Amino acid sequence: MKNIHLGIAGFGTVGTGLAKIIEKNADWIEKRIDKKLIIDKILVQNKSKERSFLPSNNPFITDNYKELINDEQIDIIVELMGGKDLAYTLVKEALAAGKHVVTANKYLLAVHGKELFALASTHNVGLFYEASVAGGIPVIKTLRESLTGDKIEHICGILNGTANYILSEMTANGIDFKKALEQAQDLGYAESDPTFDIEGIDTAHKLIVLIRLAFGVDYPLEELPIYGISQITKQDIHFAQELGYTIKLLAHVAETDGKLEAGVFPVLMPSHLLLAKTDSNYNAISITGNAAGAITLHGQGAGDFPTGSAVLADILELAKHMHTQTQPDNTGFNNSPLQDAQMLAPEFATSAYYFRFTVKDKPGVMASLSTCLAKHNISIAQAVQKGKPQDIETPIVFTTHTASTKDIFTALEDIDKHDFILKPTVAYRIF
Amino acid sequence: MKNIHLGIAGFGTVGTGLAKIIEKNADWIEKRIDKKLIIDKILVQNKSKERSFLPSNNPFITDNYKELINDEQIDIIVELMGGKDLAYTLVKEALAAGKHVVTANKYLLAVHGKELFALASTHNVGLFYEASVAGGIPVIKTLRESLTGDKIEHICGILNGTANYILSEMTANGIDFKKALEQAQDLGYAESDPTFDIEGIDTAHKLIVLIRLAFGVDYPLEELPIYGISQITKQDIHFAQELGYTIKLLAHVAETDGKLEAGVFPVLMPSHLLLAKTDSNYNAISITGNAAGAITLHGQGAGDFPTGSAVLADILELAKHMHTQTQPDNTGFNNSPLQDAQMLAPEFATSAYYFRFTVKDKPGVMASLSTCLAKHNISIAQAVQKGKPQDIETPIVFTTHTASTKDIFTALEDIDKHDFILKPTVAYRIF
Repeated sequence: MKNIHLGIAGFGTVGTGLAKIIEKNADWIEKRIDKKLIIDKILVQNKSKERSFLPSNNPFITDNYKELINDEQIDIIVELMGGKDLAYTLVKEALAAGKHVVTANKYLLAVHGKELFALASTHNVGLFYEASVAGGIPVIKTLRESLTGDKIEHICGILNGTANYILSEMTANGIDFKKALEQAQDLGYAESDPTFDIEGIDTAHKLIVLIRLAFGVDYPLEELPIYGISQITKQDIHFAQELGYTIKLLAHVAETDGKLEAGVFPVLMPSHLLLAKTDSNYNAISITGNAAGAITLHGQGAGDFPTGSAVLADILELAKHMHTQTQPDNTGFNNSPLQDAQMLAPEFATSAYYFRFTVKDKPGVMASLSTCLAKHNISIAQAVQKGKPQDIETPIVFTTHTASTKDIFTALEDIDKHDFILKPTVAYRIF
Repeated sequence: MKNIHLGIAGFGTVGTGLAKIIEKNADWIEKRIDKKLIIDKILVQNKSKERSFLPSNNPFITDNYKELINDEQIDIIVELMGGKDLAYTLVKEALAAGKHVVTANKYLLAVHGKELFALASTHNVGLFYEASVAGGIPVIKTLRESLTGDKIEHICGILNGTANYILSEMTANGIDFKKALEQAQDLGYAESDPTFDIEGIDTAHKLIVLIRLAFGVDYPLEELPIYGISQITKQDIHFAQELGYTIKLLAHVAETDGKLEAGVFPVLMPSHLLLAKTDSNYNAISITGNAAGAITLHGQGAGDFPTGSAVLADILELAKHMHTQTQPDNTGFNNSPLQDAQMLAPEFATSAYYFRFTVKDKPGVMASLSTCLAKHNISIAQAVQKGKPQDIETPIVFTTHTASTKDIFTALEDIDKHDFILKPTVAYRIF
């Protein structure tokens, strides 16, 4: 039987991890697919860079992506460069050349997924992406092939290990955001420009990929409400804990009457939930189907070997599929064209909320706040005031029952006009 | 396109659940596979039994299994009868007749799996079984298709919801085994004869299925050490909690130097682990691969809809696969013949242990116990003695560091000969 020839584009952490696993588990892989995996070519940015590891079969190293596209021998192109510029060109040309593609690139799929999946269909090839969300956790396969008879009602996930590490450290050790971010950078969890991780953007890319799989639709990234964690204070973490909650950065989508309500935001999550117990740089996803109920998946969401493991699983599946001469089902809907998502306007979303008001303590403040919330149909669940008489600023925390986001935001606008409000009010959803 | 015709064998909880989901999600299913699912025939034990639900297309109800086998129209036979007598005959004949089979029957696969998978290969058909382990949790697919490039190092799982419910209730409410079992029976979680659930036998069947998928080998059920939970006392639950552990019934397999060490036993598990937090009738499985690290899956392990959801996922996958005219990969190893497992003899297994000695309190007892353990190379991690002077029987609890099972059991044999030992010593593994 013909062996499987790979072209790997990008040889950083994940590319190197993948190549190492392919060597280490070579006998096992052959047992699985009855063929060998051969890394023929590796695309790099800088050919002269010293590398601590290269495959022992001495693949051709190139900085010209056309070398991979035009190589007739190569069956699968593995895109591990990231970004959406060269990666986009490479994947598009690879699909058009009739090559299967495996990618870990959520950014690319979030922005250009609709076009790329259509192109894969046209050329009858696979475009696989298990590694694009939650590293080694098989969430893509679970949605594409396991919960296929279920209507998905709800997905929520902790999909960014860096952000989760920062929040976990803030929670466990009472440190502030800045210090926790520095720790994450020291450990190599966060990049020198951590914007994508801490501002929810990476999580948003992943959510777009999950929405496509769960609902068979294309959700435009630019319509997704995205909030990050850089504004979270020690104080909020502390109040949340006192109320029985843990703060997590959550990707969330729910379907109601054919409309999707989705977003990325920090939430207060009851601390006993499995998701709330997802610590350090781990990822977890909970998927609720109308038959299966809630299924939670937990594991390493990033790193050379976990992500490499997911890339390799895709390669092996494509290898097994190749002899059928049919297109693998890339999206879980028989590769039928993706429809655009029907979206619930964000103001119609409902949630319970956590508010932290920063007030000048004087008689009548609590009454003013309560009255204003009541006027906007918001009912209070819990209230905590912890100021001392000498304080200039006093924090008052309210949790609410479920209310519409519209009411929440108009109420906050009203409240923040009062002269006793010293700083803009902080509001987070309660999960 | 041709629709998919089903024969359902067994119309109890899961069969009825499946039929309900097929009706409820009919539009969605058609979107997934571009075909309709039609339930043509249903095999039942008692044709005249009143049923609260039957599919609206009025399928033919029969008590003769040959009606399903000999029906040329039927593409997939769904075996939901359980047991290993008629189910075995039905599945064997169905495969031999060139029909795909979907089954939820772990008992059948544990006992006759090797033969049935070989038969499926011979006849080029699918034999799918996602519902056989952990209900709606996609563990079969995860092992068969997601962790394929990983060498699996370790699997442990809480695979029986009834046993887990009983242990959870004993832990949460301080009730004894008998009372918790009665509660489980009242709620319909346990059958009137609960032997398979509480003695670890059902868990053992599931473990055999998982071992086959993870390691590509056939592990003989009769060689598997199997222990249940009916001997667990309130006292042990209490001591475990005091030491920071939760008692769970665990299926476990680990690979070392090509040999498998496997078994089903109650263990003391550190209470902070996700598996230890699997409450009530939920299931959870943790799989450790040499690249992916540890992945944990959690969800409903039984029930009409969760199990029906898993059966339906298998049906849809077979439906999508049919047009390729190739055999689906039933075992994850290209349907190559199953080898027999290389097993580590149980006495060579190593583990930390929990001992509860029931002693007559007199001077020198603690010294005797410690000396005897030391003689057998067992070192003590923690010791708890809580007797009052007036007690006739005093419990002494030791936890040990890792020791060989052989040393553990010869030490216990020695110890239980002492006249100050009033009852056989209780020993559980610590995870």
